Amino acid sequence: MRTTRGTAQAVSPESPHLSLATVCLSGTLEDKLHAAAVAGFDGVEVFAPDLIAEALSPDEIGHRCRDLGLSVELYQPLRDIDSTDPDRFAANLRRADATFDVMSGLGADTVLVCSSVSPDTVPDRDRLAGQLHTLAERAHARGMRIAYEALAWGRHVHTWDASWEAVRVADHPALGMCLDSFHVLARGSDPAPIADVPGEKIFFLQLADAREVSMDVLSWSRHHRLFPGQGAFDLPGFLGPVLDAGYSGPLSLEVFNDVFRQSDPVRTAVDARRSLLALAEATAQRGSGADPVATPPAISGPAFVELRDPGAGPHGELGGVLHALGFTRTGVHRTKPVERWEQGDARLLVNAAGEDGSSAIAAIGVESADPRAAARRSERLCAPPLPRRTGPGEADLTEVAAPDGTSVLFCRSAPDGPGPAWSQDFVPTGDPVAAGTGVAGIDHIGLTQPYDAFDEAVLFHRAVLGLDTVADGEFAAPFGLVRSRALADDARRTRIALTVSLLRRGSWGPAVTDPQYVALATDDVLATASAARAAGVRLLDVPSNYHDDLAARLDLPADRMAAYRELGVLHERDADGDLLQVCTELLGGRLFLALVQRTGRHDGHGWADAPVRMAAHRRSRRNATTA
Amino acid sequence: MRTTRGTAQAVSPESPHLSLATVCLSGTLEDKLHAAAVAGFDGVEVFAPDLIAEALSPDEIGHRCRDLGLSVELYQPLRDIDSTDPDRFAANLRRADATFDVMSGLGADTVLVCSSVSPDTVPDRDRLAGQLHTLAERAHARGMRIAYEALAWGRHVHTWDASWEAVRVADHPALGMCLDSFHVLARGSDPAPIADVPGEKIFFLQLADAREVSMDVLSWSRHHRLFPGQGAFDLPGFLGPVLDAGYSGPLSLEVFNDVFRQSDPVRTAVDARRSLLALAEATAQRGSGADPVATPPAISGPAFVELRDPGAGPHGELGGVLHALGFTRTGVHRTKPVERWEQGDARLLVNAAGEDGSSAIAAIGVESADPRAAARRSERLCAPPLPRRTGPGEADLTEVAAPDGTSVLFCRSAPDGPGPAWSQDFVPTGDPVAAGTGVAGIDHIGLTQPYDAFDEAVLFHRAVLGLDTVADGEFAAPFGLVRSRALADDARRTRIALTVSLLRRGSWGPAVTDPQYVALATDDVLATASAARAAGVRLLDVPSNYHDDLAARLDLPADRMAAYRELGVLHERDADGDLLQVCTELLGGRLFLALVQRTGRHDGHGWADAPVRMAAHRRSRRNATTA
Repeated sequence: MRTTRGTAQAVSPESPHLSLATVCLSGTLEDKLHAAAVAGFDGVEVFAPDLIAEALSPDEIGHRCRDLGLSVELYQPLRDIDSTDPDRFAANLRRADATFDVMSGLGADTVLVCSSVSPDTVPDRDRLAGQLHTLAERAHARGMRIAYEALAWGRHVHTWDASWEAVRVADHPALGMCLDSFHVLARGSDPAPIADVPGEKIFFLQLADAREVSMDVLSWSRHHRLFPGQGAFDLPGFLGPVLDAGYSGPLSLEVFNDVFRQSDPVRTAVDARRSLLALAEATAQRGSGADPVATPPAISGPAFVELRDPGAGPHGELGGVLHALGFTRTGVHRTKPVERWEQGDARLLVNAAGEDGSSAIAAIGVESADPRAAARRSERLCAPPLPRRTGPGEADLTEVAAPDGTSVLFCRSAPDGPGPAWSQDFVPTGDPVAAGTGVAGIDHIGLTQPYDAFDEAVLFHRAVLGLDTVADGEFAAPFGLVRSRALADDARRTRIALTVSLLRRGSWGPAVTDPQYVALATDDVLATASAARAAGVRLLDVPSNYHDDLAARLDLPADRMAAYRELGVLHERDADGDLLQVCTELLGGRLFLALVQRTGRHDGHGWADAPVRMAAHRRSRRNATTA
Repeated sequence: MRTTRGTAQAVSPESPHLSLATVCLSGTLEDKLHAAAVAGFDGVEVFAPDLIAEALSPDEIGHRCRDLGLSVELYQPLRDIDSTDPDRFAANLRRADATFDVMSGLGADTVLVCSSVSPDTVPDRDRLAGQLHTLAERAHARGMRIAYEALAWGRHVHTWDASWEAVRVADHPALGMCLDSFHVLARGSDPAPIADVPGEKIFFLQLADAREVSMDVLSWSRHHRLFPGQGAFDLPGFLGPVLDAGYSGPLSLEVFNDVFRQSDPVRTAVDARRSLLALAEATAQRGSGADPVATPPAISGPAFVELRDPGAGPHGELGGVLHALGFTRTGVHRTKPVERWEQGDARLLVNAAGEDGSSAIAAIGVESADPRAAARRSERLCAPPLPRRTGPGEADLTEVAAPDGTSVLFCRSAPDGPGPAWSQDFVPTGDPVAAGTGVAGIDHIGLTQPYDAFDEAVLFHRAVLGLDTVADGEFAAPFGLVRSRALADDARRTRIALTVSLLRRGSWGPAVTDPQYVALATDDVLATASAARAAGVRLLDVPSNYHDDLAARLDLPADRMAAYRELGVLHERDADGDLLQVCTELLGGRLFLALVQRTGRHDGHGWADAPVRMAAHRRSRRNATTA
């Protein structure tokens, strides 16, 4: 059956082909094929509208694919073929013949046939089966085959088991099912019984994730699909039964997404491949498939956060603020202008390298039991190590780039264990240990993402760091809508809070651009903030209007409210507990520090109060400029 | 009751206050108040989150408003007040008291109370009425009043008549209804019976339009509202009954829109005010309200389209193309480097002024029976005339700027009638009349809009030109999603097709940016395109793949398909007829011409084939660059 496949590569159960639908990417078909090849995909699904707009003939496209090392795994879609009257069906078969001609040029042997959405289709099981049989016979005569898929919004066939029933009754060797995780999971269907379908009747598998949204399933499918690991669907729970059924064809991504449709296609394709590799790994961990099981790194908290304070010299602003916050300068890097500051389990590096640019979060060191294994796995997940200049005798830390450009380093603080400890690169200062202000560690790290990189960043932190989504939302900031997503490990030792401006701002947008912050944990934010303020840290002014509203909502004691007003405390409460925050003013262009106290099991990241904070930072910036 | 109003302006039935909710605009509260005042609003609704994030106290905000000439018409919202147990209600009354304090500072006498969405609210009519009565009594004691509104997603009260029932039963002079067009129309409720409600019990009126979308009503309301005239709701059909009931309060806009939340607030506020003025006019035309009835201009087709061909000189590229297309150069402007070209009813001006910049559509002249009246009305609708340098003896044409910067001129071609004829400024060339290629007129004008200006442009063309929406959709272009909207007069003599890239493109986006075109009408596109091609016009190559697909879909005669392939014809068919198009290659950076033939009652604008055309223009551009 698969003799017309373009490449000689066999599909073995040990290493399924990884495939990408061209509809996932931005650009012309040529751009898309190039991107899929660069990202290392084995094959592609060719989406008909991409081919129709392309000047290369199907034959030339087929050659191009082979030159790029890509199989054409599927041509798609053939719509509204079946369950119609004989005249219409005859016209549809003419369309099918033209499609087979295209496929013949491409070197594709499988075509996706979607369940009909046409108003002229009738709910007649025998007619459906008969017409599918006829179509399959026609394909068979040309060495091709039909993969029949239930669209979630199909007129009469809209569940995977209805499509299986049609395929079973039509009973032709060139007719099988195409399963698409979106259509199955968006309808809330149970994928488990798929394990009982004969594997050879599953001709093709399309994978897509999605965020939970409330809209009609057609719009959701056409605009808001995501790569596996970026959304809320249980993809390993879907892929498992399919592999258990004996499916051995490609794992293929079909993701209609408005953002990806306009993003750099090479970057999107790399993100796509990472998602499939991580999905195969996660599915193998649940006992399905033959993917080599690599354990996600056991991240046990941030080892450090490195702040860039370019051109600051040894007594830069950040160092002064950390000193006033009760941090001790415990070390100076052997070869670089980097200082290590510590208080409790909070370790911050201040890097004064560079002449210009604004203060920013340069790197996050994550504590890993086996940094080298974590780095190897990261490389397998398309996050290769960055080139790193390591001086003689310095720790050989592996550094990878997160999608927003922040470096992530796998490292360990313990002096023994595999690989070097990161802190060996610092010469102790002998500075006296400061009394501290009660900072106990790093609560979370807040990073604004570039628009095109948000979903990619979510996948990166899930797949490469092994974190998981703990919060997902949106808020209306003063200068536009912001999407938020927080990822953390189970023990909540490493928390990363991502935000993105949902519509890019044009010339109007006088807010602080792309803020970043480190939230420091304390058990008593009032004490910590008071001490910091007394030592000269400039805390962010929070408007009285906010505290008046808070007092009306929460009925807090008067002395507590007075302290709140004095120190600029933001206070969020939900059913799980409370989150209290005090922020510094901006340190440079977009960086600030926050002091955070959690009570109960509050699992938030300050987003309810973020609009107030953002307006206050903008006000403070404007006042500083006009002063 | 309205003694605490901040300004002394009386609300008379003749000129209702025009008011804007601060939530409609981007920025901090200070930015928003400034913008509302600049746009000429009489008052504002203050949205609580805007106040809470603001450093000015309520008292200071009230002063600021009075300095700016703005009344604070409403403070909003008070949520989840009613239908709950007595303890919770007591806590809610404390919140209400704090709200009355804020209002007292602001100088606002009316507060919006939304129907409760809280899980603890109970469906108890008497409890609801009792608690509303208590709340109203509390407000009354402070000289304030309660405007109770049914949220479309309220837990038990979610229709306007249910809110009226509650207000009627609670029966307190300080309690009335707030009506919001979105909540009424999004649920499909009939607004006509509102005319029977005593007008004095309608305390406040909020107006919003929306596009028809399929999503949950809460998301629709919070993200996708539009100003009246930008969406699909019948706003005059809503406002009419409210005015007929005797409502004499402000007409206030409450529009939650993700785009407006990040756009220049002054520009958004002007757009907002235009929408209210146009709505009042349209409502008056249907016989409700006391707005002076101004008739929209009777646009009877495009008088001309002016193309900018900077630095081209007398024999520029555009002139050559028009000559090859069979146009005759009929006139040269008395004082400017502008030529007039004509064929049938298609009149194109080519303006060679300027040294740099790319070819573009500079202006659209619309044929109007009374250009001066149209200009006066335009000015009333916040589209004032642009300064214009008119030479001695030249026609004094009124020019206004559309949101994308294109000029619109109201003019007439007939030599007699009120005001000067635009063509008197051109000296006849005496050039022999060309045989022509069958171009009969201008079919439509295609304009890509700046991201922030799309909905504003829709309103401009509806309100100022009197056009109406005839098509509304989206398509997936090679480099991202595109929203489309076409506006036309009833007779389809003037058609304007607007498009906008739905997500702005970052560094990846090698397509033709912001294309513009003039579609020329012909009754035989094959003949016209053949003649043009023979005369040397470079027609856009359309890929064979497109025609192969077309042949499989439409079963056209072989000779016709051969001509299509030869000439690059794009062919769309729907139930109403066919649209055939042939495009030129780009003339300069982003401008092209199209030849368009319609059959039957086809009312489209070539959007089904636009992705193919866009890929072809990009290919042609790339080939030209690399050649």
